[in-house]
Amino acid sequence: MSTAKFHRAAVQVHEAQARIAKHIPRGRTEYVPLADAHGRTLASAITAPHAYPFFRRSGMDGFAIQSADTLLATSEHQVWFRVIDEIPCGYTSEHIITPGTAARIMTGAQVPEGADAVVMMEMTESKQEQGEHWIALKRQIQVEANITPIGLEVQEGQQLLEAGTVIGAGEQSVLATFGVADVPVFERPKVAIFATGTELLEVHEPLQPGRIRNSNSYMLRSLVVEAGGEPIMYGAIADDVNTARAKLEEAIRDNDMVVTTGGVSVGDYDIMGELVLEEQMQMLFNKVTMRPGSVTTAARYKDKLLFALSGNPGACFVGFNLFVRPTLRAMQADAHPYLEEWTATLQVGYDKVNNFTRFVRGRTIIRDGKVYAVPAAARIDESSVMITIKDSDCLIVVPPEQKGIAAGEQVTILRLPAGQAR
Amino acid sequence: MSTAKFHRAAVQVHEAQARIAKHIPRGRTEYVPLADAHGRTLASAITAPHAYPFFRRSGMDGFAIQSADTLLATSEHQVWFRVIDEIPCGYTSEHIITPGTAARIMTGAQVPEGADAVVMMEMTESKQEQGEHWIALKRQIQVEANITPIGLEVQEGQQLLEAGTVIGAGEQSVLATFGVADVPVFERPKVAIFATGTELLEVHEPLQPGRIRNSNSYMLRSLVVEAGGEPIMYGAIADDVNTARAKLEEAIRDNDMVVTTGGVSVGDYDIMGELVLEEQMQMLFNKVTMRPGSVTTAARYKDKLLFALSGNPGACFVGFNLFVRPTLRAMQADAHPYLEEWTATLQVGYDKVNNFTRFVRGRTIIRDGKVYAVPAAARIDESSVMITIKDSDCLIVVPPEQKGIAAGEQVTILRLPAGQAR
Repeated sequence: MSTAKFHRAAVQVHEAQARIAKHIPRGRTEYVPLADAHGRTLASAITAPHAYPFFRRSGMDGFAIQSADTLLATSEHQVWFRVIDEIPCGYTSEHIITPGTAARIMTGAQVPEGADAVVMMEMTESKQEQGEHWIALKRQIQVEANITPIGLEVQEGQQLLEAGTVIGAGEQSVLATFGVADVPVFERPKVAIFATGTELLEVHEPLQPGRIRNSNSYMLRSLVVEAGGEPIMYGAIADDVNTARAKLEEAIRDNDMVVTTGGVSVGDYDIMGELVLEEQMQMLFNKVTMRPGSVTTAARYKDKLLFALSGNPGACFVGFNLFVRPTLRAMQADAHPYLEEWTATLQVGYDKVNNFTRFVRGRTIIRDGKVYAVPAAARIDESSVMITIKDSDCLIVVPPEQKGIAAGEQVTILRLPAGQAR
Repeated sequence: MSTAKFHRAAVQVHEAQARIAKHIPRGRTEYVPLADAHGRTLASAITAPHAYPFFRRSGMDGFAIQSADTLLATSEHQVWFRVIDEIPCGYTSEHIITPGTAARIMTGAQVPEGADAVVMMEMTESKQEQGEHWIALKRQIQVEANITPIGLEVQEGQQLLEAGTVIGAGEQSVLATFGVADVPVFERPKVAIFATGTELLEVHEPLQPGRIRNSNSYMLRSLVVEAGGEPIMYGAIADDVNTARAKLEEAIRDNDMVVTTGGVSVGDYDIMGELVLEEQMQMLFNKVTMRPGSVTTAARYKDKLLFALSGNPGACFVGFNLFVRPTLRAMQADAHPYLEEWTATLQVGYDKVNNFTRFVRGRTIIRDGKVYAVPAAARIDESSVMITIKDSDCLIVVPPEQKGIAAGEQVTILRLPAGQAR
């Protein structure tokens, strides 16, 4: 048993995050067709190649006129206009609106030259006379009425989207509007995932005494996808440091990052814990002042990051969210790569304390405009517990050395990125 | 111009939702490998085929013993145990622990028969004598100490996951643990998307006077993906009811649902509005008491749903989130298909009122444990505005006939499903 493992120097979560942050590479850029860009992260800022709206746009179905013509219009005094054109959406008029003339115009169509107002169709009276179409108005119309000016939403050259933005519906809308047919996005960082543990069975294998199925690799796979990475599954290996070293070599060579689960506790078979202490590795930390997951380990090898997470499902989940996810987001220029912090009222007291900061899986409830947090399942909140991960949308931060936290007290919660599953 | 269009009977949002709900088909089931199940929706409930843990599991690296042996152990009186086996994770012991014997055991390994407690390695003293390994204890150990009992997390037959659950990291973990290698999920409903409007250009086309690029189709594509559907892009068609009818025939035939944008306002070229009034269509509603998007229209045709959304980007966005998204979620057995309602404090007053309920795009802020909502951009909050969609994570509900809402007042907000983009 290696002595070094018993003398791990524990670092604070923030210190651990800072040590990783120094070594996060910037992702590579690729171009994808707009239709494939949903869910990807922008690799460069997008600025507007033109104003939007690009032309004076009618906000109504109605008539384009010169507003000055209506100065004397009242309910007693109709003013008449000769309709000289009809402008559907997508067409432009070849006529110029002059005093006494109007053009029928549709919502969204370009307001013709000469006109400075659009009047709603419902405000007008209509007549046909000698093959000509006339409309009448009984009230004054303001300059620019129902005209959306050029550039109301966006000026030419204005920044539309920052690098690091995840592309969703609103971003697609912007990109399409401005003709960004090929979108610069970050390549999804390739993340090798493997588990260590002679006890691990594949998902399709029948259970055997003393063994469990490899669930953490699948959990990590999902988490990597949610964080914008591309998971590459390397399965599970037995507890053997040489096997692990060989697997790591292969995984580091072919991927941007390696995440392992298991083999980091203080024990005889904790092969990842041993591996990161070898000469060729630059160990960043191998103990963090947190529960669960105090054995969470990070190292650099051949200029790439290796995260050796705990084999306990809950600890593996917390370790990923505090360290791996932010790394994947930061590789993709996310300005806020860490979990979002909220203040919440603890709905149910929590009295399990520790000399390390505890990250308790919990659920957020919004009631009457206030945020409450409920520990996922107090009875079985242990790092080893798998079943409550699915019920959690936050980590409740329980500071060290406290005498527990009573219901009604304020706590800090870290929001887990939810719903990205869909 | 059809008279019927001028006499649309407006229905409340809830009534419109209820009319749709009567006609929502249940999605079809397919089986996908677990690794591909992320983001899909479970089509049937999953129950536990076995307890979990499946065996008595050691929670520590240490020694399995009979706790009764330690009854007389004190700091003055060591009790000695002969170590008869070593049990790594994944192995089971062929030995039975009897009084005076112990087995070295690893965290996560199966506790051997006869043993009823595990003692931490750090609590023991160790010696080798005549080729035998002995350990000593100086304190009493409780029955079941450091043993996770069978079924602590899950009992055999217990329901693990409901139908309608979206599969994320926690669900993957559960499915893998219980050996669900092929997962029953709903087929992604195929949603045909097309836009109407002679003014529409493709994304790669250069701008032309009076024309705009078809951005709503891309926005809808993203929204469909986020709601768990499979978008099928049918492009944009000119304002012609015969073209629209032909396109609709094709789209209805090959898909589970059709969503269109544009052509539903009260005007000459509002072809979708006309189309849904034709004999073969079962119109469900063509006016809703809401802004933006009062012209939002839904119909049934050949047993499938057609949603004709407004061509205004903001109105199209609201219409999708209030009507189409819930339909896609309900097809996939989602128990909560509608947008989640929160109460929030309005951070910035909003004074634009209407005789219809207004759904104002906004941003949620959590501060000191309270929920605040900020209208996305008061200056240009019009249904036609595209640029603020990306900055919105909620719809602020402004009831009709109010004199605006002052900053500090309580409002209801509908949370938009965020982050699913990733």
